Amino acid sequence: MTNSPTASVLIIGNEILSGRTQDINLAHIAKRLGTIGVRLAEARVISDNEAEIVAAVNALRARYTYVFTTGGIGPTHDDITTDCIAKAFGVAVSEHPEARARLIAHYTKTPVTPARLRMARIPEGAALIDNTVSAAPGFRLENVYVMAGVPNIMQAMLEAIIPTLAHGMAYISKSVSGFVPESLIAEGLAAIAARYPQLDIGSYPWEREGRWGTALVARGTDRPAIDAASDEILALVVQHDPAPAVEIKA
Amino acid sequence: MTNSPTASVLIIGNEILSGRTQDINLAHIAKRLGTIGVRLAEARVISDNEAEIVAAVNALRARYTYVFTTGGIGPTHDDITTDCIAKAFGVAVSEHPEARARLIAHYTKTPVTPARLRMARIPEGAALIDNTVSAAPGFRLENVYVMAGVPNIMQAMLEAIIPTLAHGMAYISKSVSGFVPESLIAEGLAAIAARYPQLDIGSYPWEREGRWGTALVARGTDRPAIDAASDEILALVVQHDPAPAVEIKA
Repeated sequence: MTNSPTASVLIIGNEILSGRTQDINLAHIAKRLGTIGVRLAEARVISDNEAEIVAAVNALRARYTYVFTTGGIGPTHDDITTDCIAKAFGVAVSEHPEARARLIAHYTKTPVTPARLRMARIPEGAALIDNTVSAAPGFRLENVYVMAGVPNIMQAMLEAIIPTLAHGMAYISKSVSGFVPESLIAEGLAAIAARYPQLDIGSYPWEREGRWGTALVARGTDRPAIDAASDEILALVVQHDPAPAVEIKA
Repeated sequence: MTNSPTASVLIIGNEILSGRTQDINLAHIAKRLGTIGVRLAEARVISDNEAEIVAAVNALRARYTYVFTTGGIGPTHDDITTDCIAKAFGVAVSEHPEARARLIAHYTKTPVTPARLRMARIPEGAALIDNTVSAAPGFRLENVYVMAGVPNIMQAMLEAIIPTLAHGMAYISKSVSGFVPESLIAEGLAAIAARYPQLDIGSYPWEREGRWGTALVARGTDRPAIDAASDEILALVVQHDPAPAVEIKA
């Protein structure tokens, strides 16, 4: 639809694929990238397995402007992301003096164990990504940004990354939500979608107290088109629900 | 680790990649498959784009025992999953008499619009998947199961599918969770993980009221090994937290 920079997210972790942990990082990254006009085009969830990680990183970095990984950079045996990223790029991993210094400065009350120093191991040529929560940095190699999986740490790292990314036109979405089954407005909605090819117009059914309704969302970077399309959608919905909810999200 | 049947999930929907909708289907499918011993090995999230859907379906169905898709089988213009699946298999789409009959039987109070009948369009050779919530069926083509994206409908479809799948040994996990930073037990944990190669032993840090703790999870299909490994993990954790929480999940 646009020439926005593109992104993909690679979620690394058995705990997501076992259902133990509900991922909330993807939605956060998606929304945050949208505000700076970077379009999230794909996400993958894979296990803590070297061959899988290497293959996925190499597939995604060739395809999208940016790749953001989450998970697997902590101090334990199952944290293998750093070594896998290095392998994907064909570089070695070594202790990064600045990362080591940050860890030593952070752990003032408890010892800097060998396990903790593992978090100073960084692929050669990588730039550190600040971690204002717990010191252990993420890193960037070319267009691949390697972040922690713990949500508040991931969010802090993403904020450190955001100013360094290419910005596109910010994505905006306008939603019209009313008590109308989507099948009753499908035809009119298709006609509106055809008139605004620069927008992504979606229809999302929901159920509240046994009654079905639909949220109709116009999303894109062209604000006048979003307003015009939303006005047409509103005119469609009020034929069924006189008081739909209209919401704009940056 | 085991010879369990494998599965992948393909989440189809712009609303997930924009961050508008928080996906909860993946975790549900993961947990439910675990109970019947099917190992979820990979998930992908892609947009409502024909080329992307066709490519992903063909990549995943060649690789895993089962593929489960969610989203894009409703009545609106952005529901393109059915046609994309047909294209991936090189078959045509036509109105399925049984699917049509179910829709007509369901819509007794409102008209069966052309949009609604769109949901009776099924790839040739596919078997229907029951939808006890809103009638419009999902379908299966070979090892690909095409389900709705609305969570309660997806869950109903999955329950209809479960008895037809090959069952492996059920996955069980035992979690020991205590106030100990993971770096302080990393070494001991790595030794335990090395002693139980048949298990997936993970370490997941968390923060509560400013204090860090770790959940240590042993997961697999070998219950005696899970119990033995968890006992060793417990012995490790009580050196730091005298009262860790222990939880078993089927």
